[in-house]
Amino acid sequence: MKLEIVTIGTELLLGYTLDSNGAELGRALAAAGVEVVRRTSVPDRREAIRAAVAEALERTGFVISTGGLGPTRDDLTKTVVAELFGRTLVLDDALLAALEARFKRMGRWPMPPANRSQAEVPEGATVLPNPAGTAPGLWLEDSGGRVAVLLPGVPREMRGLVLDEVLPRLALRSGTSRRVVRSRTVRTTGVPESALAERVDPIEDSLAPLTLAYLPSVFGVDLRLTAWDLEPEDADARLAAAARQVARLVGEHYYGDDDSDLAAVVLQALRQQRHRLGVAESCTGGMVAERITNVPGASDTFIGGVVAYADVIKTAALKVPLEVIEAHGAVSEETVRAMAEGAQRLFAVDCSIAVTGVAGPSGGTSDKPVGTVWLAARVHTDSRAVRRVFPGDRDEIRRRAAQAALDLLRRLLAPA
Amino acid sequence: MKLEIVTIGTELLLGYTLDSNGAELGRALAAAGVEVVRRTSVPDRREAIRAAVAEALERTGFVISTGGLGPTRDDLTKTVVAELFGRTLVLDDALLAALEARFKRMGRWPMPPANRSQAEVPEGATVLPNPAGTAPGLWLEDSGGRVAVLLPGVPREMRGLVLDEVLPRLALRSGTSRRVVRSRTVRTTGVPESALAERVDPIEDSLAPLTLAYLPSVFGVDLRLTAWDLEPEDADARLAAAARQVARLVGEHYYGDDDSDLAAVVLQALRQQRHRLGVAESCTGGMVAERITNVPGASDTFIGGVVAYADVIKTAALKVPLEVIEAHGAVSEETVRAMAEGAQRLFAVDCSIAVTGVAGPSGGTSDKPVGTVWLAARVHTDSRAVRRVFPGDRDEIRRRAAQAALDLLRRLLAPA
Repeated sequence: MKLEIVTIGTELLLGYTLDSNGAELGRALAAAGVEVVRRTSVPDRREAIRAAVAEALERTGFVISTGGLGPTRDDLTKTVVAELFGRTLVLDDALLAALEARFKRMGRWPMPPANRSQAEVPEGATVLPNPAGTAPGLWLEDSGGRVAVLLPGVPREMRGLVLDEVLPRLALRSGTSRRVVRSRTVRTTGVPESALAERVDPIEDSLAPLTLAYLPSVFGVDLRLTAWDLEPEDADARLAAAARQVARLVGEHYYGDDDSDLAAVVLQALRQQRHRLGVAESCTGGMVAERITNVPGASDTFIGGVVAYADVIKTAALKVPLEVIEAHGAVSEETVRAMAEGAQRLFAVDCSIAVTGVAGPSGGTSDKPVGTVWLAARVHTDSRAVRRVFPGDRDEIRRRAAQAALDLLRRLLAPA
Repeated sequence: MKLEIVTIGTELLLGYTLDSNGAELGRALAAAGVEVVRRTSVPDRREAIRAAVAEALERTGFVISTGGLGPTRDDLTKTVVAELFGRTLVLDDALLAALEARFKRMGRWPMPPANRSQAEVPEGATVLPNPAGTAPGLWLEDSGGRVAVLLPGVPREMRGLVLDEVLPRLALRSGTSRRVVRSRTVRTTGVPESALAERVDPIEDSLAPLTLAYLPSVFGVDLRLTAWDLEPEDADARLAAAARQVARLVGEHYYGDDDSDLAAVVLQALRQQRHRLGVAESCTGGMVAERITNVPGASDTFIGGVVAYADVIKTAALKVPLEVIEAHGAVSEETVRAMAEGAQRLFAVDCSIAVTGVAGPSGGTSDKPVGTVWLAARVHTDSRAVRRVFPGDRDEIRRRAAQAALDLLRRLLAPA
């Protein structure tokens, strides 16, 4: 089954908002075996919405839109699509009652007049209830089999509607065909794309009919295998075998599959080896701790972190000797090793990570240019420290440094 | 001037990659007065790329694409667009020499054969040099005035090409017309969209020809004013006046304009009042410190932070009395106030922020459900603490909590 997505909002074209809805919808649909053949983003303008939806219907007969269902004046989707389907808008009494009840419950009574328009629906449309917000989803279908599904643009509301209303209806429709689009990702970090390609190229032809894509980011390079339009069992078997084969070729740089997060991988290794972790950060400013605590259940293994931004905190809280900082600088092997030791002591743990560097934009020197970062990981008395020079701006340097710090501990914890 | 963007990559449709290039390109073009009327994302498939580029050229005569210029097999853009323009690919000797020099410099010699194809360009195309990577940009133009600009998909490389090569050429082309598309944003936090609408609605009509959009996110609600196709001075004057008017109506919830970051606003206020800041976090796990240190130059004001994830660190590092945690719980007014005091002491600073809460997914109780967060801010001995219950998943709760913590200090620092 194929369809197109139309995401609506001037802010998407002006680039102030990332089209996370389009991406999330794509993921959910791909997982359900639906192929998104095109995604179009248009501004909140009547003619632009009309053209994009009409063309998508022309090409694939099935379109899902997000955005433009709110109560304010820039919300035009419902009106335009109703026109395209030759329907008038009618007040849905049940919807109005539910909307009024919601406003009473929130203590906002009387309901603002603008919200009343949210209870109007195109004649004959199916209302998809949205318990998380005021704009319901709408499912329009005509006798020619054309379908338009309108979803609100608030990500949480869209997500709920996709899971509870859209996917079940799509499953019913797809009926006889069981063919799916599925992907698996082999995640790597600490190695350039071209070095991976040299390892993987020899087997790429043999992966067909699966496709392989290299997706580099600040976290590393993901190798994405995709099965298109296969029976689910066939897709899964081929993907599993190919992923194993690719992971083996990638070797020590491989850290997980699919949406595995390196912080979760490291936490799991720590847990299995009954370690507890503390963190000391300077240039990453809390990002390593944030990555770790983003993992649900981190509290059984992660005890705490210190952001030793000022050198005085490196000496006071982490007991880095002042002479070390004076002799070698705050960005040095000696300092990062002392920070890792200090974190072990401060948090009374057996494992630690430390990071110190020059994130920029200023502060670089000829021998320590912006991007220079010293990383250390420590397990009991076994420690490693590495110096890296990361490209990119401040944010990118910090993200790369946090990922590399986690990776250093991962490699140290790996069985030899 | 109007154009369309086509972003190319199967991963965009599968939703594994956010279309940040499309957004960034949109921002850069809007700032240059170019209106992006549509953005289309298509997979790495020959026919899909061909159709999207051809249709965009048909509609607006000008298309900028990103992606599909790499050395691997899924990179098809150059070939397809050359066909659309009726050009053959020819080897560019200067480009090949530069490419080979680059590989020698990186110590990767001989150059992998796949990269040689990156030195092939459509006949008559202008090569846009890409010092940050191996794939140059390409500018194709035909006698009918149709233009296709092909940019690589690696964000940093795309960014450099847009700034150094594309924008200057667009400025030359736009020639006589000086009309621009410009936006200004009035940023608010800690107040729902509908409450803002009640304050702003009375003047919305008077803002024409500017448009107004409400953009809610976990950080608050942005009010975006946009001037379309006006002379630059006229656009700027209208936007400045409207932004002032809207900000006044929004009142105490307004914290900054455009891409102001709340952390930067707070740092600036601290700096002006000669304060120094320390942070104590539990559920946000480093996110508040990360937000603050994301601001270049934070080190003159921000001394350090502690992620007191385990209760033992709250007592050991922050000196929260054990009896307070036992009597009131780790998520309580008493604990958060003690954490803020502890941060002042630990970092020897006069200002502090503290956060403790239940980010979920587990750990909620009937009186402290998931999303419950206590926040405190302290300036000398003056302190405020508030309890909030945030919606969303773990990540969203943490982001909202970090923003609210910064906002609490902002309000405490504001002149009465």
